[in-house]
Amino acid sequence: MRFSTPRRLLACSALAAALVSPLALSHFDDKQVNQSYRQSWFTLLAMNFGPMGSMAKGEMPWDDEALKGYARELEAVANLNLMRGFAEGSEQGTTRAKPEIWQNKADFESKLEDLRKASAALNAMAGNGDRKAIAEQIGAVGKTCKSCHDEYKSKNYLY
Amino acid sequence: MRFSTPRRLLACSALAAALVSPLALSHFDDKQVNQSYRQSWFTLLAMNFGPMGSMAKGEMPWDDEALKGYARELEAVANLNLMRGFAEGSEQGTTRAKPEIWQNKADFESKLEDLRKASAALNAMAGNGDRKAIAEQIGAVGKTCKSCHDEYKSKNYLY
Repeated sequence: MRFSTPRRLLACSALAAALVSPLALSHFDDKQVNQSYRQSWFTLLAMNFGPMGSMAKGEMPWDDEALKGYARELEAVANLNLMRGFAEGSEQGTTRAKPEIWQNKADFESKLEDLRKASAALNAMAGNGDRKAIAEQIGAVGKTCKSCHDEYKSKNYLY
Repeated sequence: MRFSTPRRLLACSALAAALVSPLALSHFDDKQVNQSYRQSWFTLLAMNFGPMGSMAKGEMPWDDEALKGYARELEAVANLNLMRGFAEGSEQGTTRAKPEIWQNKADFESKLEDLRKASAALNAMAGNGDRKAIAEQIGAVGKTCKSCHDEYKSKNYLY
C-alpha cells in the first residue's frame, strides 16, 4: 500500500493524526484546537439548520415541534463565540477556511452577525404556525450561510 | 505498509472515512451524524471548561474577563440538546460512549442536568471577583464531568 497522490498524502496525514493523538477521533487535536473548535461549531450549526432546510424544501415532513427545537438550538449555537475558532494562526494547516477570512476579519464578522440576526428572527417566529413565512425565513438564514461560504470557504472538499 | 494490529485496522477505517466522505475532515459523517453531533458538543464544552480548570489549578494565569466568557459559553453549550447525539442506534460503531448510556438513559440525563446546574451556578458567579469561590465552583463543574465519565465513557483511548 503506497501513498503517492496528494489525496493519499492527505489521507496519510489523517492516519498519522489518528495514530498519534488519542483524542483525534473525538475531533480534538492539541495542535489545531481552533480548527477543532470552529469545525465543531459548524457541525452543530449544520445539524440544526439542515433539517429545517429540508423541511422548507419539502424534502422531509414538516414538523412544527421539531422545527421549534432546531430553531432554538440554531440561535443558541449561532450566538456562541465562533471567532475564537478563527484566532490568529489558525489559518495554518489543512483547512477549507480561506486566508481572506483573516484578511477581511471585519467583513467576516459582519456576515456572522447577519447569521445571528436571521437565526434570531427565525427562532422568534418558529412557533407561530405560518409555514410560508417560516420557510422564507429558513431561506433567509440559508442565504447568510451561502453569502459567507461563497467568499470564505474553499470549494476543495479534500480539505 | 500493512495493516495488521487492531490499532492499524482502526486507523485504516479512519483513512477510509476520510477518503470516502468529503466532509469527514469537518467532523460530519453521514453515517454517524449523532456521534458527530455529540463529539462536537463535547469539544465545545471542553474548550470552555479546559481553560477555567487550568486557571483554578493555577496552571495558567487567572483572567477574570476571559473566565466570564468561558463560563457564559459553558452554560450555553451545556444547555444545548445533547441527547440528540445519543439517539437510539448511535451506540453502534467506533465510540467511547459505553452501552450503559442507552441502558440507563434516565441516570445519564440526570448527570447531564447536574452539569447544567453547576455550569449555571458558575456563570452566575463568574463576575463577582471571589476567586476562591469561583475556583471551587469550577471544581464542582469538573466533578459533574468526572461523575459521568467514570460510569459512561470508555477508557479505551483508541476509540
